[in-house]
Amino acid sequence: MKTAVPLYEALAAEVESQIAVGALRPGERIPSVRSASRARRVSVSTVLEAYMLLERRGRIEARPQSGFFVRGPHAEAPPPPRSAPSVAAPRTPRVRDLVGAVYAAASAKDVVPFGAACPGPALFPSRQLNLVLRQVLREEPNHSAVYTFSPGDPELRHQLARRLSAAGGVVDPEDVIVTVGAMEALQLCLRAVAEPGDTIAIESPTYFGILECLEGLGLKALEVPTDPVTGIDLDALAGALRKRGSVKAGLFMPSFHNPLGALVPDARKRALVELCASRGVPIIEDDVYRELAHAGAPPRTLRSFDRAGNVLLCGSFSKSLGPGLRVGWAVTGRWRERVRALQLCSTLGASALQQRMLARYLARASLERHLRRLRRAFRDQVLRTTQAVQTWFPPGTRVSRPQGGFVVWIELPGRRDGLELHRRALEHGIGIAPGAMFSTTNRFRSCIRLNCGHPWSPRLEQAIATLGRLARD
Amino acid sequence: MKTAVPLYEALAAEVESQIAVGALRPGERIPSVRSASRARRVSVSTVLEAYMLLERRGRIEARPQSGFFVRGPHAEAPPPPRSAPSVAAPRTPRVRDLVGAVYAAASAKDVVPFGAACPGPALFPSRQLNLVLRQVLREEPNHSAVYTFSPGDPELRHQLARRLSAAGGVVDPEDVIVTVGAMEALQLCLRAVAEPGDTIAIESPTYFGILECLEGLGLKALEVPTDPVTGIDLDALAGALRKRGSVKAGLFMPSFHNPLGALVPDARKRALVELCASRGVPIIEDDVYRELAHAGAPPRTLRSFDRAGNVLLCGSFSKSLGPGLRVGWAVTGRWRERVRALQLCSTLGASALQQRMLARYLARASLERHLRRLRRAFRDQVLRTTQAVQTWFPPGTRVSRPQGGFVVWIELPGRRDGLELHRRALEHGIGIAPGAMFSTTNRFRSCIRLNCGHPWSPRLEQAIATLGRLARD
Repeated sequence: MKTAVPLYEALAAEVESQIAVGALRPGERIPSVRSASRARRVSVSTVLEAYMLLERRGRIEARPQSGFFVRGPHAEAPPPPRSAPSVAAPRTPRVRDLVGAVYAAASAKDVVPFGAACPGPALFPSRQLNLVLRQVLREEPNHSAVYTFSPGDPELRHQLARRLSAAGGVVDPEDVIVTVGAMEALQLCLRAVAEPGDTIAIESPTYFGILECLEGLGLKALEVPTDPVTGIDLDALAGALRKRGSVKAGLFMPSFHNPLGALVPDARKRALVELCASRGVPIIEDDVYRELAHAGAPPRTLRSFDRAGNVLLCGSFSKSLGPGLRVGWAVTGRWRERVRALQLCSTLGASALQQRMLARYLARASLERHLRRLRRAFRDQVLRTTQAVQTWFPPGTRVSRPQGGFVVWIELPGRRDGLELHRRALEHGIGIAPGAMFSTTNRFRSCIRLNCGHPWSPRLEQAIATLGRLARD
Repeated sequence: MKTAVPLYEALAAEVESQIAVGALRPGERIPSVRSASRARRVSVSTVLEAYMLLERRGRIEARPQSGFFVRGPHAEAPPPPRSAPSVAAPRTPRVRDLVGAVYAAASAKDVVPFGAACPGPALFPSRQLNLVLRQVLREEPNHSAVYTFSPGDPELRHQLARRLSAAGGVVDPEDVIVTVGAMEALQLCLRAVAEPGDTIAIESPTYFGILECLEGLGLKALEVPTDPVTGIDLDALAGALRKRGSVKAGLFMPSFHNPLGALVPDARKRALVELCASRGVPIIEDDVYRELAHAGAPPRTLRSFDRAGNVLLCGSFSKSLGPGLRVGWAVTGRWRERVRALQLCSTLGASALQQRMLARYLARASLERHLRRLRRAFRDQVLRTTQAVQTWFPPGTRVSRPQGGFVVWIELPGRRDGLELHRRALEHGIGIAPGAMFSTTNRFRSCIRLNCGHPWSPRLEQAIATLGRLARD
């Protein structure tokens, strides 16, 4: 780190962390100024300064004659409402310029990384991955001298099938295609099930990469209202599907939706799968966040409820092991040959070395240990971010409560403009993703998405405070 | 190797190699049986057997009282004729099933590798690449922990711009986009310049991956007659372009065309570029074989003749450093933002580690040394293959004479069927690429393409002999 964090800020951050993970609960007394001073070997005034900061942030309150106490959740902002009253007419998505700006900000080192959905680099198990890479270099020195044609490395496909089968549905290794990240998987699946001009049902809002992908392929997006807690509105979807042939396929993110964080409950997942199967509408399941459940086992895939062979499952290691790997997968059932043929005339497949490395890494079962740490980190970071937003953003702000993943969706009060906030935030060296990127409609102009992928720090807290100030103006 | 090669075969192969590389010239006397026996420490009868084999193969001839002499090129098969009398009407390519069979054969270890265009793994500088990989792992252990968003690693783009500028046209690093192999580059460029339903002018025959790519994108292929020596027929192309708007773009491989091996002379390259510019038809230049010139400096790119910013240049390391790297590039001029946006919603970019590794490898200038060795190897292998074909294939067979790259195009005499030969060859454990794969028409049914990427061996000679026998039947 270039600039040292003041002692009192570090101490405040530590107490906040304890609150975030539940080590200190609402209403509990925190250590007295004097005892904290002794325990930490810092001056009484440093502790006092830390506690006053926490008080200003709304984390703790001073009770006369009693000391400092963790504040309750009484002032919690409610989550944003269900996204839209009705299904939007199909449109050709056009969000390109915004996306370029957000990616550019994400690559700039000096911009606070609330923009693109990227975990902090230190959260990835790079040291272990590099150990395995060295092993591959030693034992398979010719790793890159031959094509690893689509569908990809057999051993990696075996490992992926093993892992994915654990989520409910049985996955045959023969049915796994290794891709260059989940984005290639989604694109290949879209091309396999639809033709230019077709309409794809999606959640509203949805990940802007999906909107761009649809635009690039000449597909139309039918935006279906989506609840930040329970996900896509099944009645609205059923209505949209009623007209046979109007929707060619659905592309859904049922487990820790980006940007909403919604998790579709199992009963509704089953209903969603059955609804689409009954209409002959294949589902492309974007599964990149499912394994990042903050607590408990990862939820089930849509595919695990599928009896009709109607779900194409897409995922990647970009959010769990490292986005630079560029390795993902697609489980494509009866579309397998078509997806494979499309990959053979686009990328042919992912890097052979990374495929070999991942096959070995997965075989060693160290992924589970790593994921446990990662989930805790994301839970903590999401909590910190939502708490800070509640502290610093104007009254009336609504904040999502994701139970997995690491993005938070915020609806600003009144007629505040997320695009304007995005522009002004960038001037202050802060990257955010404006709500307008996540829809072809104007419905989310007052929203923003924050990336909570980075470990909490005073710099992030400061940036949230700045954002809050800008949002108040 | 599992089965030892008989001594006399090894000796014969060595003499053939000397002939192939020109160390022994037509008309020259080869060492006498007795002196060869002493020099090689093999028996006289072994040498005699080797020389008789060479005689049967048409490589040498016995002259009474004088010894054995290298045979002249009098019996050389002529190259195949220009491909077609007229431009074929645009069609939707459908070659998928064949391609799958050829790729499957290419991945099978026990199939003789004349099918897919892949160099032998031992020809790649894997040891050096691995040294550089280890260096990256040491010095940049977090290589895969962040996205290397399109357009890709800045240092690699700088190195690519430097190399490509040497070929004639000035290339700005800002204009280089790193892709997942040349195939992704071609596809992104096609999507940038054309819409589904548009017609793309291509050489006839052409690389089947291009036909598949066009089909996958809903584009039509307009096949233009192409000469195995001088490349695409400019008059025929001019005729096709005369109707304004009929052709949306051209996709050409002017330097060591796959499968023909044609090299368009500089004057015709200039004319081709000017013709397309005058019609407002952008050119996508498939440049994957240009650096593999068998002798002399690599030829110039079409792009180097381009004054109008009308050429998109696509290449990769798959044929020079290793296909498993999955790293290529596109230089896209005014289509840059569109290509970049399309990549951001397909793969986002190539593996970060491979990009860092290649940036370092290119900076060390060891690529040139490697390429010199590689070009010699390909020249030798192409010569051996064409000579063997002339020896074993039926009279009337025509063979291409590529001056670069490592594929050979063969036209069988009479009404022989390349597809039938492909099928029967596979039964004998030999992979070849039937001519039908390289066109949407039936014009090349009597053709086959042979991959000469592997170091010559008795096994390959034997396979050519088998192919020749099957072709004679």
